[in-house]
Amino acid sequence: MHNNATPQQIDAVCAAIKAMGFEPMPMPGAQRMAIGLVGNAGPVDGSGVAAMDGVAQIIPVTKPFKQVSREWRKEDTVVAIGAGVAFGGRAVPVIAGPCSVETEEQILAAARGVKAAGASALRGGAFKPRSSPYAFQGLGRRGLELLALARRETGLAVVSEAMDEAGADLVAEFADCIQIGARNMQNYSLLKAVGRLGKPVLLKRGLAATITELLLSAEYVIAEGNSQVILCERGIRSWDTLVRNTFDLSAIPVVHKLSHLPIIADPSHGTGVREHVAAMARAAVASGADGLIIEVHPTPDRALSDGAQSLYLEQFASLVPELRAIAGAIGRTIG
Amino acid sequence: MHNNATPQQIDAVCAAIKAMGFEPMPMPGAQRMAIGLVGNAGPVDGSGVAAMDGVAQIIPVTKPFKQVSREWRKEDTVVAIGAGVAFGGRAVPVIAGPCSVETEEQILAAARGVKAAGASALRGGAFKPRSSPYAFQGLGRRGLELLALARRETGLAVVSEAMDEAGADLVAEFADCIQIGARNMQNYSLLKAVGRLGKPVLLKRGLAATITELLLSAEYVIAEGNSQVILCERGIRSWDTLVRNTFDLSAIPVVHKLSHLPIIADPSHGTGVREHVAAMARAAVASGADGLIIEVHPTPDRALSDGAQSLYLEQFASLVPELRAIAGAIGRTIG
Amino acid sequence: MHNNATPQQIDAVCAAIKAMGFEPMPMPGAQRMAIGLVGNAGPVDGSGVAAMDGVAQIIPVTKPFKQVSREWRKEDTVVAIGAGVAFGGRAVPVIAGPCSVETEEQILAAARGVKAAGASALRGGAFKPRSSPYAFQGLGRRGLELLALARRETGLAVVSEAMDEAGADLVAEFADCIQIGARNMQNYSLLKAVGRLGKPVLLKRGLAATITELLLSAEYVIAEGNSQVILCERGIRSWDTLVRNTFDLSAIPVVHKLSHLPIIADPSHGTGVREHVAAMARAAVASGADGLIIEVHPTPDRALSDGAQSLYLEQFASLVPELRAIAGAIGRTIG
Amino acid sequence: MHNNATPQQIDAVCAAIKAMGFEPMPMPGAQRMAIGLVGNAGPVDGSGVAAMDGVAQIIPVTKPFKQVSREWRKEDTVVAIGAGVAFGGRAVPVIAGPCSVETEEQILAAARGVKAAGASALRGGAFKPRSSPYAFQGLGRRGLELLALARRETGLAVVSEAMDEAGADLVAEFADCIQIGARNMQNYSLLKAVGRLGKPVLLKRGLAATITELLLSAEYVIAEGNSQVILCERGIRSWDTLVRNTFDLSAIPVVHKLSHLPIIADPSHGTGVREHVAAMARAAVASGADGLIIEVHPTPDRALSDGAQSLYLEQFASLVPELRAIAGAIGRTIG
Repeated sequence: MHNNATPQQIDAVCAAIKAMGFEPMPMPGAQRMAIGLVGNAGPVDGSGVAAMDGVAQIIPVTKPFKQVSREWRKEDTVVAIGAGVAFGGRAVPVIAGPCSVETEEQILAAARGVKAAGASALRGGAFKPRSSPYAFQGLGRRGLELLALARRETGLAVVSEAMDEAGADLVAEFADCIQIGARNMQNYSLLKAVGRLGKPVLLKRGLAATITELLLSAEYVIAEGNSQVILCERGIRSWDTLVRNTFDLSAIPVVHKLSHLPIIADPSHGTGVREHVAAMARAAVASGADGLIIEVHPTPDRALSDGAQSLYLEQFASLVPELRAIAGAIGRTIG
Repeated sequence: MHNNATPQQIDAVCAAIKAMGFEPMPMPGAQRMAIGLVGNAGPVDGSGVAAMDGVAQIIPVTKPFKQVSREWRKEDTVVAIGAGVAFGGRAVPVIAGPCSVETEEQILAAARGVKAAGASALRGGAFKPRSSPYAFQGLGRRGLELLALARRETGLAVVSEAMDEAGADLVAEFADCIQIGARNMQNYSLLKAVGRLGKPVLLKRGLAATITELLLSAEYVIAEGNSQVILCERGIRSWDTLVRNTFDLSAIPVVHKLSHLPIIADPSHGTGVREHVAAMARAAVASGADGLIIEVHPTPDRALSDGAQSLYLEQFASLVPELRAIAGAIGRTIG
Repeated sequence: MHNNATPQQIDAVCAAIKAMGFEPMPMPGAQRMAIGLVGNAGPVDGSGVAAMDGVAQIIPVTKPFKQVSREWRKEDTVVAIGAGVAFGGRAVPVIAGPCSVETEEQILAAARGVKAAGASALRGGAFKPRSSPYAFQGLGRRGLELLALARRETGLAVVSEAMDEAGADLVAEFADCIQIGARNMQNYSLLKAVGRLGKPVLLKRGLAATITELLLSAEYVIAEGNSQVILCERGIRSWDTLVRNTFDLSAIPVVHKLSHLPIIADPSHGTGVREHVAAMARAAVASGADGLIIEVHPTPDRALSDGAQSLYLEQFASLVPELRAIAGAIGRTIG
Repeated sequence: MHNNATPQQIDAVCAAIKAMGFEPMPMPGAQRMAIGLVGNAGPVDGSGVAAMDGVAQIIPVTKPFKQVSREWRKEDTVVAIGAGVAFGGRAVPVIAGPCSVETEEQILAAARGVKAAGASALRGGAFKPRSSPYAFQGLGRRGLELLALARRETGLAVVSEAMDEAGADLVAEFADCIQIGARNMQNYSLLKAVGRLGKPVLLKRGLAATITELLLSAEYVIAEGNSQVILCERGIRSWDTLVRNTFDLSAIPVVHKLSHLPIIADPSHGTGVREHVAAMARAAVASGADGLIIEVHPTPDRALSDGAQSLYLEQFASLVPELRAIAGAIGRTIG
C-alpha cells in the first residue's frame, strides 16, 4: 500500500482478496502497510487489486509455472529422442547438421560427416522462418523425406522445426523431435498443437524471453499432456554488433535450479559467428548443458542460410574431442 | 577483407561475387581492401562470401525490404477499417476498449463509453495470448459475436486479435481489422494467412524486434497481395522494472521515413501502468502517430486481464480532449 | 523461504532479522513461508539473510532513495539557473547550442541564433567525453571563457559539462549549471564534488541506468546538501541500429510520480538522428517534460562532434513555434 | 547516398572527402551510389559528411581503436601483477576475496583461505561505488593498509578498485593492480590518470558497453603509455530478473580475436547469485578466459556488501579443482 493509504483503502483491499477466495494478511511497516495474500495454490492475477486506491504495487512470491517446476518434480526428466540419445542424464548428446536441408547430396554428406565425428542426432530445417519473405523458405515435405533418408543411412535421430500446425503434423511423421524456433516460443496455438502430438519437443528460448517465460511456454506443452520437452538457450538480443546474439549461458544453471527439464545450448545461433562457436560450445558443456545443437555444413560458403555461423565438417570433427575432454572433467560424457 | 588478406583471397571473393551474378568492385584502403558488390536489385545473402578466407565482414547497404519501403511508394498509404475510420491521413483515429471481451454487459458498456468519448473503433480480444496456460484465454467465437453486437449498437469499427490460421478466418468474419500481436510478429505462417485474407491488418511490433524486422514482417503480408497494413509501436523489452515495457516513440518518425505504411501507438502496453498512459498518449500524438489504441475498461479492478493498465471510462473521456488539443497544435484532428 | 524450509531455518532467519534491529513477521502460505521485515526506516541490505539456508529470495518493498522522493517532499522542486530560467514550474525552458564549443565565431553565432529563436539557455561542451582518446576532447578553460562571453552578449544562461573534480570547479566558475553526462552518472566521486559546489546540476541518465538508479545518483548530490538537481532523459541503449539510442519518454511521468525533482529531455542524443529530433522534441513537451536540451549548430556539416544529430539554426527556429503550440495545448509555456 | 541523390550532391560529398585529406571512390549500384573513403590511417569522424544533402548513411569500415588491436600487435600481451601471477599466458590465475575489506580479521581469514585453496591474488575493495549514498562506502586508506598486511601474510598479489584520481594514487601505493569498475569504464579522466600511473590496470566492462567501447576505454589507458591492461567481462544489463546481470562469455573469444590484451571473467557479478557462480566459473575457463576474479567471503551472511553472490571459503576450495580439470582439458593450468 502507499505510505498514505487510508484504513478504508486497506480494508477494501483485504475484502477484495477475500472475495477472490484467499486470505489477506496485513503486515504493518514503519513506512507503509503491506498486505500478504495466502492460501493460493498457484499464481493469482493481481491486476484487479493493483487497480484499487491506495495500492502501491503487487509483488508476486509464488512462481507462475507449475508442472515444469523442480518443486513439482524433484528428479531430472530424461527425454529420449532415439535409441541411446537421451537428454537430461549423464550423457551430453550433440545434435549437428545444416541450418536447412538443401539437397540429397548435401544432407547425406552432412549426416555422414557429423555421425563420424561423434554426433548423436541430425538437425536440418525443412520449414525455415526467415525475416524476409524473399529468402529461401525450405524444401518442405521433400526436406523431411531427405532427413528420413539420412536417418536410414546413418542411424542418427532427426530434429526438425515446425512453424505451424500443419507443418507440425508433417514433422512428427518424419522426425524424432519437433523443434519450436525462437520466433515461435510464444506461439501458443503451436505449443498446444505439439503438446497434443506427443513427440519430443525441442523448445528454443525467444530473443527477448525471460527464463520464466521460457518455462511458461514449456508449461503450455506439458499442460496438453506431453512432458517430453527439451529446452534450448540460443542467445538473446543485445546491443553488441560484434556477435549476432548474446549467448546467455547462465540460463543453464538457472533452469536446472528451477525446473526438472533438460536444457541444451546452441552456440551457433548463440554467437552467430563461426570462429566463436567452438569456444562457446566448450563453455556450454562446462556450464552443465544437457546437450548441444550445432550448425555444420559440408560447404558453408555455399549454404542457402546461416553459412557464416556453420562449422566446416573438419572443424566439427576437431571440436568433439575438446568437448569430450571438458565433459570428462565434470564427470559427464559426450553422446 | 582482413588487413592481411592475400591477393588470391581477394580474387576468390571477386570470383564468388561474379558467380552470384553481380559485379565486384575492389576498393583499396590504407589498412585493408574493401570489395563492393554492385548490380543487385535487392538484398543479397552474403553468408557464403562471409565464410571465405580473408573476409573480415559483410556490410549490407541495400535495405532488405521492398514493397513496404518509401522508395517503392512515395505517397502515404491510407488504410480504412470502416466508414470514416482511416489511418494514414490527416485524422488520428483512436481505437479503445478492453483487453478481453468478457461479457455482453462489459463490452457494450465499454463500446458505448468509448464511442461517447470520441473513439472511432473498438478493441477487444476473443483469443488471448497469455504467458501462462492457466490464465483466461478469451471467449473465442462468442467473444467475436459480442464484438459484432457492440458494432451494431454503436457503429464503431471492430479490431480483434488472431493467434492462428483458424482464428484468423473467424476474426475476419466478424471484425473489421485483424490484429497480429507482438508475440506473433514473426509467426510467418500467420502473416501469410492474413495476407491472403485481404482484410486490414494491425501488426504490432515484437518485444525485441527492430524496426527493420517489423517492416519485413509487414512485407510478408504485402507479398501475399494485401497492402492494408497498419503498424503499431507497443513498447519493447527493457531492464527498467518501473514500467512493463519501454515505449519506443522514435519508431513513429523512423517508420514514417522508411515506409509509406501508417503507424499507430499503444500507450497501454507501451507503459503497462495506468497512470502513465495519458502522458504517453499525448506524446504519441505529438510525435506524429497515425492513430492510437488504448485499453479502456468499465471496471478495471475486476478485469480478467490487463486491469492495471486499463483506463477507467472517465479517464479516457478526459484524455480525448487533451489529445484533440495536441493534434490541433500539429495540424491534425482526432478521429 | 523455500517450500521445503525447516522450522529451524525459519527461526534462524527470524533471529537474524531481530539481530539487525528489526521485527520479523512470518506469513505462512499454502506453498511456502514468507517472512516480512518491519520497523525499518529505510532500505536494508538483505544480502546476509539471502545467504542463509532455506531462503528463496529477498523482496524489497521500501524504496531505496529518500530525499529525492515525492514522499519526502510533496511539492515540485523548481531549479532556477538564471534570471527567468526555471525548471519545474509551468514554463518549459529550452537549452540549445552546439555539442562542443569550437571557436568564438561558432559559439557566438549559435548563441545569437538560438536566443533569437526562443531558447533560454546555451549549451556547449568545453570538456568532452569521447569514446576514442584520439577524438576532439574540447577546448577546456578557453571553451568556458567563450561560453561566458556568449552569455554577456546574449543574456542566455550557460550549461556545460564537467568530467572530473578539477573540471567541476572550473565549470562552476564560468557556467550557471554543471552538467554530469550519461557516462558519469554513477561516478560517485564526481557527484559528491558537484554536491558540495552548490551550483545547479543537470544530471543525465546513464545508457543502461534504471530510473531508480538515476534517482539514487541524484540522492548522492542532495546528500551533500545541494538540492538543485535537474534530471535528464537522453536515451538508453537498445538494439535498434536505425537510431543511436532509444528515447525512453516514459521516464518523464515515472519520475514525476516518484520524485519532486524536475526532469527535462534531450531529443538530440535521445535519437541521434537530426531528422527525428523535431518529432521527439514535440513528444517530450507533450509528455510533460520540464525542459528540453537540443543540439543546434550554425554549420552542422563542419561540427567537430555530433554533427549528424545537430539541428541547423533554421530548423531550430521552425521547431520552437511547434513546441509553443504543444505546450499551450497542455497549459504550459515555452521558456 | 540516397537513391535519388543528384550528381551535384555526389560531387559535393566527394569534394568534402577530398577537403578532409582523403580520397573519395564512387561505387555506382543498381539502386544507389556508394562513395568509399580511402587513404585514412585510422577512424574518421564522418558526422560532417553525414549531414550533407543526399547522404543516406555513413558506414565505418576501419576499426576505431588502434594500439589495443590485434592488427597493431600480433602476440598476446602478458600482464604480470606479481611474482608468478601473469595474465595472458598459458596459466589462468584466480583472483579471489571479499567485495569489501571490512576488518583485519575478515581480510586475513579471506586471504589465508583463498591462498590455501589455490588463488593467486586477493581482491578487496577499500573504495566502494554503491548505488545508494547511504550504503557502506569502504574503509578507504585503512582498507588498503589491511590489504597490504594480507599480502605480507600470504604472498598473494593485491587488486583493489579506485574511483577517482586521488584514490588511484593511494591504490597504486598499496596494491599491485588498480581495478576500474564497470560504472567508471567511461570515466575518461580516471582512465588517463591510471594510464599515467603505470601500474597494471584491471578494466571492467560497463553494464551497457559494447566490446568496441571496452577496447576504446583500454585505448585511453594505453595512449598514456601504460600497456599493462587486463580486461574483464562481468555481466551486462539485461531484462531477466532471475540473475543480477547477463554474463556475456562470448566477450572472451571476441576480445581474443580483436585484441592482444588478456581478458578475465568475473562470474560473481556476472550472475549475482552464489549458486550459479561455480557453473559460470567453469564455463569461463572453458571459453578461454585468461583469469578469473571471484568473490569469496569467510562469512557471506554477515558481509557488508555483495553477500548474496559471495562464495563460502569451502565452496571456493571445492571449485578450484573443478577449474583445474577444465583448464587441463584445454591445455592450460590454474594459477
